[in-house]
Amino acid sequence: MNLILEDILAARIRIKHLVHKTPLLRSRQLNRLLGCDLYFKAESLQKVGAFKARGVCHFLSREETGNPVVTTYSSGNHGQALAWAASQFERKAVVFMPEDASQAKVAAVRGYGGEVRFAGLSGDDRQAACEAFAAETGALVVPPFDHPHIIAGQGTVLLEIVEELPTFDALLVPTGGGGLLAGNALALKALRRNAQIFACEPELAADARASLASGELQRIEYAKTIADGARNLCLGNLNWDIIRRHVDGGLAAPEFLIVEAMRELATFTKQYVEPSGALGLACLMGHRDQFKNKTVVIILSGGNIALEDYARLITSHGAKHGSASR
Amino acid sequence: MNLILEDILAARIRIKHLVHKTPLLRSRQLNRLLGCDLYFKAESLQKVGAFKARGVCHFLSREETGNPVVTTYSSGNHGQALAWAASQFERKAVVFMPEDASQAKVAAVRGYGGEVRFAGLSGDDRQAACEAFAAETGALVVPPFDHPHIIAGQGTVLLEIVEELPTFDALLVPTGGGGLLAGNALALKALRRNAQIFACEPELAADARASLASGELQRIEYAKTIADGARNLCLGNLNWDIIRRHVDGGLAAPEFLIVEAMRELATFTKQYVEPSGALGLACLMGHRDQFKNKTVVIILSGGNIALEDYARLITSHGAKHGSASR
Repeated sequence: MNLILEDILAARIRIKHLVHKTPLLRSRQLNRLLGCDLYFKAESLQKVGAFKARGVCHFLSREETGNPVVTTYSSGNHGQALAWAASQFERKAVVFMPEDASQAKVAAVRGYGGEVRFAGLSGDDRQAACEAFAAETGALVVPPFDHPHIIAGQGTVLLEIVEELPTFDALLVPTGGGGLLAGNALALKALRRNAQIFACEPELAADARASLASGELQRIEYAKTIADGARNLCLGNLNWDIIRRHVDGGLAAPEFLIVEAMRELATFTKQYVEPSGALGLACLMGHRDQFKNKTVVIILSGGNIALEDYARLITSHGAKHGSASR
Repeated sequence: MNLILEDILAARIRIKHLVHKTPLLRSRQLNRLLGCDLYFKAESLQKVGAFKARGVCHFLSREETGNPVVTTYSSGNHGQALAWAASQFERKAVVFMPEDASQAKVAAVRGYGGEVRFAGLSGDDRQAACEAFAAETGALVVPPFDHPHIIAGQGTVLLEIVEELPTFDALLVPTGGGGLLAGNALALKALRRNAQIFACEPELAADARASLASGELQRIEYAKTIADGARNLCLGNLNWDIIRRHVDGGLAAPEFLIVEAMRELATFTKQYVEPSGALGLACLMGHRDQFKNKTVVIILSGGNIALEDYARLITSHGAKHGSASR
């Protein structure tokens, strides 16, 4: 299936009654400090606190099966999103999670009505268990990023942005497996070829940057970053095929700047954002000259982090390295 | 001057181009946990992070003077709001602050272009210094709450709420000097007499509750609460005259529930809110039976608290008392 803009437009109509149209937030003070004109698309305020709600809703609106059970193997926001969306579609979600998953994440999936099953420690363990379960029961597997329905769903973010802000210079997208990036890149380039779009990753997991720089899909060996939504070792295949053609480059931020970006988002936009959700601002802060005097849209997503972890992060790293901008 | 609904309608037109129309946020999960239907009017996303921006903009749009200097004696969000608004009206703000004011608050006023002058430690010290400065220089004093222009400006919050949500059962308003409460009570009762409105305070500074219960304006002796925006010892006179007639009652929350409300707001609405800003939810959590199955609008404001203080609060009190609702 070759995705086109029209698929994303159709996805929007299919999911519009289920997801929020999220606000574009601004801070004049932050603009002055950073020397550019920033708009934050707050997908941290989306259903389940992350853009993932869009992709799963679209997937479930497209895939009819006789079996009422849907399943996935993501331990993060995608798992929560599927648990929530399944209830909207009167289905049941079974989410395969690692044996060392945090209590908060397990509780969140259960809180949305999902069933949690534990399977090993690695991503491969979870995926294998999930696929075995699906083969045995006929449950529908909802993959986290490497699927046209997921990509088209995530691409609806861009439609909302351009409705509210007709022109801008650049779009910064937090990037893990590349669902959000591919969907937004496809829509952006189809609608307005002048704006640039960048993948934003942690330095410690910058596989998309490596792939874009080399022109070949690159896989990294490990990804020990606090931005757990960006720990994928490699972009999805379908995602890469779109990203390769439509994304202008990859940016990466060191861990301390990710924390500093979380701090700035709390101080100036009053948003509670997890490390992965702050990647766009973190990358901009690390590349200020590149975006000087530009109008830049930054996607924030998500907002799912335990209070204790959040408190520890905003008082440790940030305090240690100081705030360059305050 | 006898304030009427029309004054608030006119205030809205005067300030509409200067302030944000803030969103009404919801959380289905929080509704389920608390057994009611909540709408959060996020004035923490207002200019300067607090509803105070409305009142000062309205005041400055009404009061023309030859002197370009405006001044006030509030050390909190009102001081920041005046510093910001003065620049919008091409005036200069001089803000009198206590000698022990936090660096963050001093920096915030200066960041908006205001001049800070230090005067003693008490509220009386600041007010006296400010008034002496005004008498000497002809600078215009912008009071924090006890003035019809301020009350009418704060009342514009209610107009935005009813445009988006035509009916609800109750409105919970964080209350210090009573500007926000008086303005919203006046507008609410003029528009729809069926909804109730409640003052929300800390147990440690519940002077409005005492005044409403006794029918006489009450002053408390001291107010050692973490909710620094609610540390006023007494409502303003004009405020009380309106509150007495239009407010249905006073609620108060213990300190640990204020912190717990901050935690719930981060977890479920992804909002970074200061203690005073969380008073409405804190009071609802302490009076759950009263609001069971009701549709309740809670004003959140503001979002101005240092990161280190925020981190300390959400990990101390909250953790100590546990989360009743999770």
